[in-house]
Amino acid sequence: MSGNTFGTILRLTTFGESHGPALGGVLDGCPAGLDLDEALIQAELDRRRPGSGGLAGTARKEADRVRLLSGVFEGRTTGTPIGFVIENTDQRSKDYNQLKDLFRPGHADFTFQAKFGLRDYRGGGRSSARETACRVAGGAIAQELLRSEGVSVLAYTVELGGVEAQVLDPEGAQGRAFFSPDPEAPARFEERIRQVKAQGDSLGGVVEVQVLGLPPGLGEPVFDKLDARLAYALMGVGAVKAVEIGAGCRAARSLGSRNNDPITPEGFLSNNAGGILGGISSGQPVLARAYVKPIPSIAVEQPTVTTGGQAASIQVGGRHDICAIPRIVPVLKAMTALACADLLLLDRRLGRER
Amino acid sequence: MSGNTFGTILRLTTFGESHGPALGGVLDGCPAGLDLDEALIQAELDRRRPGSGGLAGTARKEADRVRLLSGVFEGRTTGTPIGFVIENTDQRSKDYNQLKDLFRPGHADFTFQAKFGLRDYRGGGRSSARETACRVAGGAIAQELLRSEGVSVLAYTVELGGVEAQVLDPEGAQGRAFFSPDPEAPARFEERIRQVKAQGDSLGGVVEVQVLGLPPGLGEPVFDKLDARLAYALMGVGAVKAVEIGAGCRAARSLGSRNNDPITPEGFLSNNAGGILGGISSGQPVLARAYVKPIPSIAVEQPTVTTGGQAASIQVGGRHDICAIPRIVPVLKAMTALACADLLLLDRRLGRER
Amino acid sequence: MSGNTFGTILRLTTFGESHGPALGGVLDGCPAGLDLDEALIQAELDRRRPGSGGLAGTARKEADRVRLLSGVFEGRTTGTPIGFVIENTDQRSKDYNQLKDLFRPGHADFTFQAKFGLRDYRGGGRSSARETACRVAGGAIAQELLRSEGVSVLAYTVELGGVEAQVLDPEGAQGRAFFSPDPEAPARFEERIRQVKAQGDSLGGVVEVQVLGLPPGLGEPVFDKLDARLAYALMGVGAVKAVEIGAGCRAARSLGSRNNDPITPEGFLSNNAGGILGGISSGQPVLARAYVKPIPSIAVEQPTVTTGGQAASIQVGGRHDICAIPRIVPVLKAMTALACADLLLLDRRLGRER
Amino acid sequence: MSGNTFGTILRLTTFGESHGPALGGVLDGCPAGLDLDEALIQAELDRRRPGSGGLAGTARKEADRVRLLSGVFEGRTTGTPIGFVIENTDQRSKDYNQLKDLFRPGHADFTFQAKFGLRDYRGGGRSSARETACRVAGGAIAQELLRSEGVSVLAYTVELGGVEAQVLDPEGAQGRAFFSPDPEAPARFEERIRQVKAQGDSLGGVVEVQVLGLPPGLGEPVFDKLDARLAYALMGVGAVKAVEIGAGCRAARSLGSRNNDPITPEGFLSNNAGGILGGISSGQPVLARAYVKPIPSIAVEQPTVTTGGQAASIQVGGRHDICAIPRIVPVLKAMTALACADLLLLDRRLGRER
Repeated sequence: MSGNTFGTILRLTTFGESHGPALGGVLDGCPAGLDLDEALIQAELDRRRPGSGGLAGTARKEADRVRLLSGVFEGRTTGTPIGFVIENTDQRSKDYNQLKDLFRPGHADFTFQAKFGLRDYRGGGRSSARETACRVAGGAIAQELLRSEGVSVLAYTVELGGVEAQVLDPEGAQGRAFFSPDPEAPARFEERIRQVKAQGDSLGGVVEVQVLGLPPGLGEPVFDKLDARLAYALMGVGAVKAVEIGAGCRAARSLGSRNNDPITPEGFLSNNAGGILGGISSGQPVLARAYVKPIPSIAVEQPTVTTGGQAASIQVGGRHDICAIPRIVPVLKAMTALACADLLLLDRRLGRER
Repeated sequence: MSGNTFGTILRLTTFGESHGPALGGVLDGCPAGLDLDEALIQAELDRRRPGSGGLAGTARKEADRVRLLSGVFEGRTTGTPIGFVIENTDQRSKDYNQLKDLFRPGHADFTFQAKFGLRDYRGGGRSSARETACRVAGGAIAQELLRSEGVSVLAYTVELGGVEAQVLDPEGAQGRAFFSPDPEAPARFEERIRQVKAQGDSLGGVVEVQVLGLPPGLGEPVFDKLDARLAYALMGVGAVKAVEIGAGCRAARSLGSRNNDPITPEGFLSNNAGGILGGISSGQPVLARAYVKPIPSIAVEQPTVTTGGQAASIQVGGRHDICAIPRIVPVLKAMTALACADLLLLDRRLGRER
Repeated sequence: MSGNTFGTILRLTTFGESHGPALGGVLDGCPAGLDLDEALIQAELDRRRPGSGGLAGTARKEADRVRLLSGVFEGRTTGTPIGFVIENTDQRSKDYNQLKDLFRPGHADFTFQAKFGLRDYRGGGRSSARETACRVAGGAIAQELLRSEGVSVLAYTVELGGVEAQVLDPEGAQGRAFFSPDPEAPARFEERIRQVKAQGDSLGGVVEVQVLGLPPGLGEPVFDKLDARLAYALMGVGAVKAVEIGAGCRAARSLGSRNNDPITPEGFLSNNAGGILGGISSGQPVLARAYVKPIPSIAVEQPTVTTGGQAASIQVGGRHDICAIPRIVPVLKAMTALACADLLLLDRRLGRER
Repeated sequence: MSGNTFGTILRLTTFGESHGPALGGVLDGCPAGLDLDEALIQAELDRRRPGSGGLAGTARKEADRVRLLSGVFEGRTTGTPIGFVIENTDQRSKDYNQLKDLFRPGHADFTFQAKFGLRDYRGGGRSSARETACRVAGGAIAQELLRSEGVSVLAYTVELGGVEAQVLDPEGAQGRAFFSPDPEAPARFEERIRQVKAQGDSLGGVVEVQVLGLPPGLGEPVFDKLDARLAYALMGVGAVKAVEIGAGCRAARSLGSRNNDPITPEGFLSNNAGGILGGISSGQPVLARAYVKPIPSIAVEQPTVTTGGQAASIQVGGRHDICAIPRIVPVLKAMTALACADLLLLDRRLGRER
């Protein structure tokens, strides 16, 4: 746990500001011998790219080309750190000059200034959602590692602006608009977005992640529970305001007799636990949901203050998303993969090996 | 982040099983010169003690006397690690012999066995809620440290078994049954418990924590956000299945124009953010909620399997709570205090000092 | 790397002052299923006990009884943290009142005061050599873990007060006075000690450690080299002023053609590398030496200052060792075992498993 | 402590192989507001550059241009991670094809293969001395941070191939050949090098580092002593086989009455402790020495084995240094600066602030 590094054995360290020369990262602790190339990482990045959001998305055009700098030799990982960079190519910094002296409501402007005493105000600097490109790059490698162990991660939108999607086909969500697990939902999502966009306002939603094939025994019994790590991973993505595991909030209103998952020789009969008991994976699918707030940059006028503390008002134009969904979906998938791959590597040393 | 250690600068390491000789812990990184004595820690432990839960509580009688072993000299901390132990005095291990070969549904029995290949089956061993006594002891010191910096932590029950309490008097909750912030709620909580207890079933609930006086600037922009740390701290308490910050789940259905907290020269006009923007404290009260599942040990008969994989049924008698509330409330307060005190110490080195 | 915790996977956290109620520690990360009992730990502690030093040793009488509090069930480790305490029973604090206001030369008195603003002056408080008892207890478990993997650690005295011992029988050193690898050396060591003791002065020496059976591949290529970890482990023991690996200091005056260890199909022809190449174990015996300074507490009068900064003089009587050898030998063995066991557990996750 | 990350608060993570596309790193935890530009880092890199070694140096021509990618805005650090890359421009990989199937004696070839099961054999891959360029870049920033607090780090050659230099002018060493603190020594060093080079052999030496102006109170009393951290930092540089602090090895043969540094109201009368007592800085200059082995790549023929285990012989030509000095000097300075700056930031949170 440190500012810009995630993980214990598989550690992703990221750097980069929205309008600096480049973003990048280092993934350390990846075992040697894993097949890996740039194309695989690029494919995952393309899912998160500005412009991929359709109606909900930003107009910024970034190629977001990842360049692998180390840790791979003749198509396989070498066990040494995997460094990568993503150049910033479409930086219209002057767009942001007008925001230099204002604190945008719902953004990190005020708190960055309070923390550091100065800030790179261009596009949110380090607190820009652009930072998450590096998480997706690192997460793509983590997914590859998980895949080599028979584990897969799914992520899909179960709600957008109050409109729900049914979890009918989660595997197909990756190829569908809004990463919807429901073939019918995208049309309703678009309708809702059109409506709110016309008012100059913005929307939130709910994303579910599933981990399939995770062996039982991952996670530590006390502080470092698998669910605690997932909560940390998902809540650490900007805009996420709540995280639940399995039955989540509903469990608090249930009875023990209903909430317990009965065990039979054939396995568990339900999965209210979300695949985690006592902080340790049970072998069932791991299930978590992240609740995402509406994008704070809106065209509606809002009261704020200048950096000098004077009353002011703000109306954010520019090329902004009106909903973090769908672009946040690959980010949440990446964080889930990083958390699970780390615990998988961490666990190999204990008990079961003996 | 490691199995049994919490924190970066202020680090609590705990040990101990439900029915071993003793539990204990080490709090490292506490600054020198803080006034501290055993009585202060004992007072917090007494709030969590078996038997303190009234109707909802366990019948096990443990004095839970903490003994300070190091790190304090002439009534003040010395800057060296603070070691403490809590002896186990009322261990009726034979109560558990019948559970030796069964996996209790909703408990960590199966996952412990899967992880370690063997387990201390007496009372849940390391996964027993008894382990949280050490968190409360460490959290009492963290609270003292926060207090010396003008920061206080409140924790109170906002829902129990579907029955809600109003947040009318959160400061008074500590002295009220169920740590209720609402003078009227305890009677309704008791009624609900009586009902469910008669059915041999169990209940969950929702606990809210508030941190008052936390300076702006704590938390790190990317992975190690204040909200991510809180989510990790709270989700790491057994039975917690969801964590939300500020408006939490509701934010996902709100509009940007309503969810943003407007800023004025006098301060923020609302606190949907829960005192955290971009992962960094804003100076407003920090607000989080933990959703607690029903106690899995119930008198109702449930299907399960033996450790050998044979079908069986189980009905848990013994001296068990039927709701983790109120005993979990001081634990959640402790974890919140540990997380915030750690970030406070961590932050002193950056920006604002220069 | 933190003040009172050693290790990444196998982590020893210690606490306790020389004259507080008790010392103790927590060893976390030990795999489940290892045979372990108190007697095994006690045997190692007995080798370091006050009074074990013969002529060179202290007159303080401490039973140094270790009590295991957790992590072991039915004679085997459970994978949960192993907590232990060692009570302080023979604390003559009043012996130290005269030193309350003086900074002893060569001790940590001045620097503790500078760091913490206050200090537990009784017997050096946390900086007392008594703290190392907990390292020995933790190291005893680490040695057991290594033994179960076919790895053994030896430690023996190769020099005391300028008098050298030949490394004739390192395996037999454990049962010999001064942990001497040379049956003839103890008599010469005693003669040297008698001489210097008569002058009220003190002595240093050199201890060598050997790790046999360590598999090739442990240690990380860049910062976290096996030799860097060993240097950290050994230099972190009070009184150690230099650490060398293999040919060590002599390598700096050698030629490449002589210092390189030639490789043949039967193995390496020499071991100037001390079993480590590029920071990674080679499979040869790992060899390190620690250079230990003379005990700073001497009966000879020395100039110093009071805590208020006034000139003063000091002459330390009391029950002090005049040489850290032999009591430091089990401590250096323990630290070597902890470092190697940690790297062994850390390595299992990489490359070779795939 | 992890493979490719150094430090607790100020953390340097590096990546990159000798013959991959680029090397680079991320320095996280640097406070906001520090003046910083590329030129300052470049100046330090130029001191370590291939070709800077004169007679002792390599013939490889690398511009070693550092490019800053993040963490700096308008000439000052922002408190966010500082990412940088150094492109590899002069990679003659084919030079290494002949070494593909041989383990070079004294190199990490065999141990890399044992650890990872495969290796990037081109120029040593990750274990190449080229990796240290990133340490120098990170260290340049750490030195800037220290300078802003009144602390400076010196590093100079005190011995080369058995030829000694007097520490007459350590401040002037930076501008002198071989970073010699003695104006007369370079001529003698060159003479020695010429001699040994003619034989196709190689040389080692000894480098001393000094830290001036470090405040008292840095370092932790038990495992994480200032001297333990320095030993870890310096021993973690390839080719270093011993580290000593202050009187170092000589202390082991001294008497307590001579080795103790007497304290007077005006300060300490000597510095055998090397500025560290009980693991904590005393305010005196911190003094450490690193013993460097001869370069293992020599033109003399040596026995070795192929990766398949067959007997072979090797004679290394190519563009190699014959002594790690002087190029290792800025690396050791960088590591010292990183270790001290980290402890400086770490200490701000304790005792003295209250």
